[in-house]
Amino acid sequence: MYARVNSAYGRLETLFRRMGTLGEAAGILQWDASTMMPTGSADARSDQLATLKSISHEMLAAPETAELLDAAGHEQTTLDDWQVANLREMRRIWVHETALDGALVEARSKAAMSCEMIWREARPKSDFAAVLPALSEVVRLTREAAAAKAAKLGLTPYDALMDQFSPGVRAADFDRIFARLADVLPGMIEGALWRQNKDPQPISPTGPFPAKAQRAVGTLFMELLGFDFNSGRLDVSLHPFSGGTPDDLRITTRYDEDDFTRGLMGILHETGHALYERGLPREWRRQPVGEARGMDVHESQSLLIEMQVCRSFEFLSYAAPHLKEAFGGADAVWSVDNLTRIYTRVSRSLIRVDADEMTYPLHVILRYRLERAIVSGDLALADLPGAWNDGMRDLIGIVPDSDRTGCLQDIHWFDGAFGYFPSYTLGAMAAAQMYAAAKSADPNIPAAITTGDFKPLYAWLGAKVHSQGCRYDTPELIAQATGAPLSVDAFLTHLERRYLG
Amino acid sequence: MYARVNSAYGRLETLFRRMGTLGEAAGILQWDASTMMPTGSADARSDQLATLKSISHEMLAAPETAELLDAAGHEQTTLDDWQVANLREMRRIWVHETALDGALVEARSKAAMSCEMIWREARPKSDFAAVLPALSEVVRLTREAAAAKAAKLGLTPYDALMDQFSPGVRAADFDRIFARLADVLPGMIEGALWRQNKDPQPISPTGPFPAKAQRAVGTLFMELLGFDFNSGRLDVSLHPFSGGTPDDLRITTRYDEDDFTRGLMGILHETGHALYERGLPREWRRQPVGEARGMDVHESQSLLIEMQVCRSFEFLSYAAPHLKEAFGGADAVWSVDNLTRIYTRVSRSLIRVDADEMTYPLHVILRYRLERAIVSGDLALADLPGAWNDGMRDLIGIVPDSDRTGCLQDIHWFDGAFGYFPSYTLGAMAAAQMYAAAKSADPNIPAAITTGDFKPLYAWLGAKVHSQGCRYDTPELIAQATGAPLSVDAFLTHLERRYLG
Repeated sequence: MYARVNSAYGRLETLFRRMGTLGEAAGILQWDASTMMPTGSADARSDQLATLKSISHEMLAAPETAELLDAAGHEQTTLDDWQVANLREMRRIWVHETALDGALVEARSKAAMSCEMIWREARPKSDFAAVLPALSEVVRLTREAAAAKAAKLGLTPYDALMDQFSPGVRAADFDRIFARLADVLPGMIEGALWRQNKDPQPISPTGPFPAKAQRAVGTLFMELLGFDFNSGRLDVSLHPFSGGTPDDLRITTRYDEDDFTRGLMGILHETGHALYERGLPREWRRQPVGEARGMDVHESQSLLIEMQVCRSFEFLSYAAPHLKEAFGGADAVWSVDNLTRIYTRVSRSLIRVDADEMTYPLHVILRYRLERAIVSGDLALADLPGAWNDGMRDLIGIVPDSDRTGCLQDIHWFDGAFGYFPSYTLGAMAAAQMYAAAKSADPNIPAAITTGDFKPLYAWLGAKVHSQGCRYDTPELIAQATGAPLSVDAFLTHLERRYLG
Repeated sequence: MYARVNSAYGRLETLFRRMGTLGEAAGILQWDASTMMPTGSADARSDQLATLKSISHEMLAAPETAELLDAAGHEQTTLDDWQVANLREMRRIWVHETALDGALVEARSKAAMSCEMIWREARPKSDFAAVLPALSEVVRLTREAAAAKAAKLGLTPYDALMDQFSPGVRAADFDRIFARLADVLPGMIEGALWRQNKDPQPISPTGPFPAKAQRAVGTLFMELLGFDFNSGRLDVSLHPFSGGTPDDLRITTRYDEDDFTRGLMGILHETGHALYERGLPREWRRQPVGEARGMDVHESQSLLIEMQVCRSFEFLSYAAPHLKEAFGGADAVWSVDNLTRIYTRVSRSLIRVDADEMTYPLHVILRYRLERAIVSGDLALADLPGAWNDGMRDLIGIVPDSDRTGCLQDIHWFDGAFGYFPSYTLGAMAAAQMYAAAKSADPNIPAAITTGDFKPLYAWLGAKVHSQGCRYDTPELIAQATGAPLSVDAFLTHLERRYLG
C-alpha cells in the first residue's frame, strides 16, 4: 500500500519526518523555557527556536520541495487514503510557509518575541503606551503576512491568518456562530445569574491546600484519564499549558495554596490536550496527517474534559471523596451539590481566562471583532483600549478600570497570534457536540465517569477524533465524528441543562 | 577590523553561528534527557538529537562550505588574529566532520546510542557477552571513522580520534607523560598509604545529610565560585555533569543522604566546568574560536577547582564552619585536619570515578593502552575483560572480581568515545601547572580562598584561560597561560606536598 521510499511522495515523507523531528525538539525547548530556564538565557533561547524554525522553513521553501509536491500529485493513484490526506496537508503547510519569505518569517518571530517581553513588563503597570510601538510592528508584519497568504490561498487576509489555526473554517462560519451566541448568551447569563442568586450559595473550602496535596490529587485524576507518566510529566509554570511531544507530554499547572479549584481544573484541562496528542495515529508520527487537527479541535479536547465532563455531576460525584480525603474539612463543603455550585458559577468578569463557559464566548467575540478590524486596518492600534472598553460594555455589561484588566490581559496579539481567538469558541461548540455524540453512541459513558472510569469515553474519542489526526479538515472531522455538521445547538442545550434546567 | 559580512569569511561566521545555535539546542535537549525526560521518550529524543547533528553535518559537508573555506584562505591578510584563529578552527572542525560521510556519522550515532542502552542493562548484571555484539559494531564503525580521519589529517588513526578531544595533542605526548607517571606513581602510592596508616584515621561524619541541606551548602559554594543562577541551574541526575550552554549552564549532582562528601565535591567539580563555559569570550559566542578548548582543558578547569583548590587546606578552612552549620555534629568531625584527611585519602580502588587523584592516572593509563590496542586491532574485543584484569594487576595491584567493576564500569567506549580517556590526565597535569602559575602570578590567591574569595583566582583563570577560547591549540594555550610547556612536574610536586610532605 505504501508508496515507494524513493517516489516523490516517499521523499516528501522523509522531508516532513525531519521537520517533524525538529518540531519535537522545539516543543521541548519551549517547555523548558517556561518551566526550567533561568531568565538570563531568554535571548539565547529565542535564537535557538528561531534557528530551528528557519531551518524548517528553508527545507519547505527549497525549490526541490515544490517540485516534489508537483511530482507527488501525479502519483496520487498509487497512494492510499491516508497518504492522499498526508499529501494534502503537506501542500497546506507548504502554502502557508512559502507564502512568506524567510526574512519575513524571521522578522515576525523576532518582533513577536520582543513585543511579548515588553508586554510582560507593561501589563502589570497597565502601560499600553509602552507596548504600542512593538505591537504596531507586530501588526505591521502580521498584515504583511496576511496579505501574502491571502494571495496564495485565495482567501481574505483574516481568513488566511485563521486558516493556520482552524483549517477550512472561515470568518463567514464564525459570523454565523457568533451572531447567534451574541444574540442568545446575554439573556442566558441573566437567567443563570437569577437562578444562582436564589439557590444556596456555594461554601468555599478553606485552605491552605498544600501544593503537594494538590499535585497528588491532580496526578491521581490524570492517571484515571489515561495519562502515562512514562511518557509525560506534570510541572509548574506561570501560565499552564500542554506541550512537549506525543511521546513526551509535558503539562504544567500553577498551585494556589489558598484555592485548589483552578489549579486542579487546569490540570484536567491540559490533560485533555495531552491525551489528544497521545492518541494521534502512531504510524503517522512526524507526518502532517499524523498531527493534531488545528487549535480548535485541540481546544475541543481540553474543553470536553474540563467543561463537559469534569465539571459535571458525574465526575464531581467521583471526585468529592478524593478531594475530601486530600484536603480535609466539613462534609458540607465536599458535597457534590456544593462542588457543582463552585464549579459551575456564572459571573460577568473582566478576564477571559477566568471566565465561566457561558460568558467566555462573549470575550472571544469581542476579540474577534477587534482583531478583524486591526487586520483590515479599520481600527488604529492607538484606539484599541477605547474600542475594547466599548465592546466589553456592549457584550458583557462591565468595563475594565485599567488596560491591565482590559486589552493588555491576553498574550496572543503581543505574541503575534491573530486569528487564534475564535478557535476557543469553536472548540467549545465542538466539545459539546462531541460529548453529546459520544453519549448517544455509548450511553454507558456518564455512569462510567461516576466511577472514575474514563475508558468508554476515551474509546470513543480515540476512535472518532484522536486517531484521525489530520485525515479530514476541521469541519469534516467534526461532521464525521458526530454525524452532523458543526452547530451551536449542542453547546446551547448543554448550557440550558446545566445553568437553567 | 572585522571582515565584511559578505566576504567568504563573513559567510562562514554566519554558517558556524547557525551550527553553534543548533549545538546549544542539542545541549539543552541532552540535559533534559538526563534530568527531566520520562523514560518512554528515549527513542524519540535520540532521533531529535541525531537530526540536529545531521543537519549540522550537512551544513558543513555542503560543497559551498569547502569553497568558502578555500576563498577565506585568500582573505587572511584582511583578518585579525582572532578571525585567523576562528578560520583555523573552522577548518579543523570541517576536516573532522567531512572526513566521514553522512551515513557513517548517523550509523555511529545510532550504534553508540543502542550500545549505550544495552550497556546500561549489562553492567549491573556484569554481562560483558550481552554487550559484546553492540560494542563490536561501535568499534567497527569507530575504526572506520578513525581510518577516514587519519587519511585526511595525516595522523595515525588513534591520534586522529584523540585530536577531536585534545586538539594538537598526540599519542607520542601521552606516551612520554604516561611512561613517567607509570614509573613514579606506584611508589608514591606506597608512600602515601604508609603515611596515611600511621596518621590519625579520619572520623566519618554521621548522617543523615538531608538532600536539601546538601543543596543549600552546594549553592552557597557555587555562588562563591561565581556561578550566577540567573544563567544556570543545579539539578539532580544519575551521573553528574555540566551541560547546557554558556548562557544557560546546567550542572547536576546526586545526593547521597548517608554521605555528603562526594555530592558536594561533585558540585564544585561541575562548577569548575561551568565557569569555564561562562568565561568564554562573549564576542565570539557560537563561533568555533569562542568555544572551550577541548576536553582536556575543560577537565583542567574542573580539576583545578576540585583537586587543587577545594580539597586544599585553604578551602577546607573556609568550608569547615559552613559544613558544621549545615549538618551539625561534633567539633572533631568538622576540624580542618579531619576534613583534609577525608578529602585527600588515597586507596587502590577498582572504580575510576571513585579514584583519588594519585591513582586516577593509572586508571587512565590502563584504558589508554587498551583502547589503542582496540583501535589498532591488536586486541580482540572478546579478550578485553582478561586484558583489563591483567592491566589492573600490573598498574594498581588489585583485580576486579567481575566485569561490572572491571571493563564494564565506564560508559565511554560503549558510547563510542575512543581517544577521550587521556584527556582526564592531561587535564590533571594542566590543572596543577595552571594553579601553580596562578599562585606565582598572584600570591594572594590561596589567602583569598581561605576567606571564600575566589575572585583573584578567577581573575587569573578568566584572563589566561577562559577568555582565550580556542585562540590557541591545547599545548600552546597551556604554554601561553603558564609560561612553560605542559609537563608532569607541577602535578608530581603537588602530590608530593599533599601526600608525602
